[in-house]
Amino acid sequence: MELARPSRKTNGVGVQVGDTQVCVVMVGLPARGKSLIAQKAQRYLKWLSIDARVFNVGNYRRKGAAQPTADFFDVNNAEGERVRRAAAEAAVNDMIKWFKHEHGIIAILDATNSTKSRRRWIKDRCDSEGIETLFVESKCDDEDLIMSNILEVKTTSPDYKGQDPEKAAQDFRNRIRNYEKIYETIDESEQDLTYLKIMDVGKRCIINAIQDYLQSRVVYYLMNLHIKRRSIWLSRHGESMYNVTGQIGGDADLSPRGEQYASKLPELVMQSFEGQEHPLTVWTSTLKRTIATARHLPKEWNQLQWKALDELDSGVCDNMTYAEIAEEYPEDFEARDQDKYNYRYRGGESYRDVVIRLEPIIMELERSENILIVTHQAILRCIYAYFMKEDQERSPWLNVPLHCLIKLTPRAYGTEKVVYKANIDAVSTWRGKGSKALHEDPTEETESLAK
Amino acid sequence: MELARPSRKTNGVGVQVGDTQVCVVMVGLPARGKSLIAQKAQRYLKWLSIDARVFNVGNYRRKGAAQPTADFFDVNNAEGERVRRAAAEAAVNDMIKWFKHEHGIIAILDATNSTKSRRRWIKDRCDSEGIETLFVESKCDDEDLIMSNILEVKTTSPDYKGQDPEKAAQDFRNRIRNYEKIYETIDESEQDLTYLKIMDVGKRCIINAIQDYLQSRVVYYLMNLHIKRRSIWLSRHGESMYNVTGQIGGDADLSPRGEQYASKLPELVMQSFEGQEHPLTVWTSTLKRTIATARHLPKEWNQLQWKALDELDSGVCDNMTYAEIAEEYPEDFEARDQDKYNYRYRGGESYRDVVIRLEPIIMELERSENILIVTHQAILRCIYAYFMKEDQERSPWLNVPLHCLIKLTPRAYGTEKVVYKANIDAVSTWRGKGSKALHEDPTEETESLAK
Repeated sequence: MELARPSRKTNGVGVQVGDTQVCVVMVGLPARGKSLIAQKAQRYLKWLSIDARVFNVGNYRRKGAAQPTADFFDVNNAEGERVRRAAAEAAVNDMIKWFKHEHGIIAILDATNSTKSRRRWIKDRCDSEGIETLFVESKCDDEDLIMSNILEVKTTSPDYKGQDPEKAAQDFRNRIRNYEKIYETIDESEQDLTYLKIMDVGKRCIINAIQDYLQSRVVYYLMNLHIKRRSIWLSRHGESMYNVTGQIGGDADLSPRGEQYASKLPELVMQSFEGQEHPLTVWTSTLKRTIATARHLPKEWNQLQWKALDELDSGVCDNMTYAEIAEEYPEDFEARDQDKYNYRYRGGESYRDVVIRLEPIIMELERSENILIVTHQAILRCIYAYFMKEDQERSPWLNVPLHCLIKLTPRAYGTEKVVYKANIDAVSTWRGKGSKALHEDPTEETESLAK
Repeated sequence: MELARPSRKTNGVGVQVGDTQVCVVMVGLPARGKSLIAQKAQRYLKWLSIDARVFNVGNYRRKGAAQPTADFFDVNNAEGERVRRAAAEAAVNDMIKWFKHEHGIIAILDATNSTKSRRRWIKDRCDSEGIETLFVESKCDDEDLIMSNILEVKTTSPDYKGQDPEKAAQDFRNRIRNYEKIYETIDESEQDLTYLKIMDVGKRCIINAIQDYLQSRVVYYLMNLHIKRRSIWLSRHGESMYNVTGQIGGDADLSPRGEQYASKLPELVMQSFEGQEHPLTVWTSTLKRTIATARHLPKEWNQLQWKALDELDSGVCDNMTYAEIAEEYPEDFEARDQDKYNYRYRGGESYRDVVIRLEPIIMELERSENILIVTHQAILRCIYAYFMKEDQERSPWLNVPLHCLIKLTPRAYGTEKVVYKANIDAVSTWRGKGSKALHEDPTEETESLAK
């Protein structure tokens, strides 16, 4: 079975990349969530196997001025202005090198880029290199939001490392005042720019002159982000009869221990609320074992069955044990271990294929509030990889134990994880590279979702 | 095999509908493409099995005033104003009845709704009935676009039926002038409205206060529409060895006649250009028979392989003939004929499932220019149903002959179709209700894509 040939014009995951290279230029005053947006966009793109890198101008500037005070950012401070300009130039130069020599697809230039002249300069530089520009402005005048951003994020910035948080916050507010003096929002005079202007964290958006599919993907993703505090609950189905017999795929019923887990799941979910009530929406796959696992959850919670949450399709190997696959399709068995992420079962799917069909699920998760997903091992690995920024080559080897509930809470930088164990025995369905094992214990080094 | 239970909160196709009912309120001067947008949105939603209906205020107004002249639309014409107001009220009343008694999901109110007071009145009516509102304004100042819209569409409107086109166009321009006198674009004073403002046919968009997933789906779709003239070419793979033996699914090679078709396809495509050169992008599935069919097309055309274009997954019936399926799974065979659109093969897919996985393909087709798709029978039926507004219950029974190329060109109202036949014999893969037939000829009444 030939693997899908990713064509020159695609990254092989159904995203029309073409020859396009895009510089996403962040725009906005400090503490408007620019770095957060940049990080999330990069994570999303990497998950889709689109090569993306963040170029943070602050990091370049810190080489010349490690811990400057607010005065440094005063428009009248000529030395400060010189250093900041040099940092921007260094970042843009490195970015252009990256596009040229490493064939990057999307660079995200993380800086305030707060004046029209600075934006024009970036556009001209990119134009002359044949790189598209997409300006993304985050504009927010909600004082509470800005303050919470200052306190949560900025006082932990390298600029203030080791300093008194109160003093740091005050200095940072002064820094913002200095930027405000010269800040120019993107307006009618810049209609030749391609831009997305996000106001008050997505309440209102302006989208101007989107040129192609790749830009539209990024714009749609960024429009869907929200910052309400919420969590995502993940669970595999309870142990199935196939788990017990070591068979893959199929549509088996739960084992008696799997039934025990289903009965205990409502209690486990309540425990995870830790005192706070949440109405959850429950998503399952269309397969019996996930629907059965979710069936004792409160009746008043909405349940949705998604075909897109069905287990990775193992094609001709459906219903077989790994030992049978190794026997009947030795070359395939070998090929899968060599490149588990890209290996596509004959007549079935690869992890890469699963990521494509999960993309709308991820988009909906970004828009949604509290969701509980009851699904399958490979699907959980892919969803987990998105939230935890797991390397796509490593994610197919993660250990996802049966009979535990994982609660993920996205935060400003990274995702918080808490694991709730049902303490109901189950077989291990993990399989190490080269192994044909029915019920193998993960090695010490194996990363586990439940730790 | 149990069919997926569509939950109360979903239409069963992976769209979170919830209890939401949305009134999409079109806003804009005449000849800004409002009716076109309304029609396309309805077609898209129906294709996704979301119950949507257009309420065209003009149709209500024509009951009171069949062929009014421009004077009728003068702000100072009190009688005209009274009739137009009554038409709006009648349309809104019918719409609310439809929501209440027929449990509709999305109504599209197609009218100019050109003043703030009119929009406020609609919002208040909907608010009091618990119906969400999404205002969609099309604003366009490009005189050429407006004129071509006037000439192409409006002079064929019922308002001008049987009249001299030149005079009709002149009268229509005067009507627009009358609307312009009172037209108020959606602005800062209406920030409590949820709205999408599309400027110059999508060049620029403003999106305000989107509340939920269903609204965001509609908004994303409308943002992706463009009006550049382009076509979509559709072809099945050449005849495969499985077509010859009457087997379904699998990953068979082309038959000798299928190879002939692959060799002839470049010529057929050139013929379809009818003198105009188009660089095409070629999309195939990941299966051998579509890739082989596309392999003689010009090397300089980009080719993309989409897993989402793979044939409907027939699960346990993969590789079988219909006679074998009827023998081995008689209940399934019967159930499929009863409701072919919803029937899901054991371990496989239904047409409804295929529509969900094709949705991103449709979205990308809407954004793209000239695309040639080489794919499979069920997939073609679904794509065709979208463009030709086929009923979803009928589409699984369409006849899609092998060895012909179908060129679809979306126009203002409807889609133009031209068929190019290769004149290379092939078996028929069509199957009538109840039949187990290997190679059955479609009946006289069967709708054919190639006619």
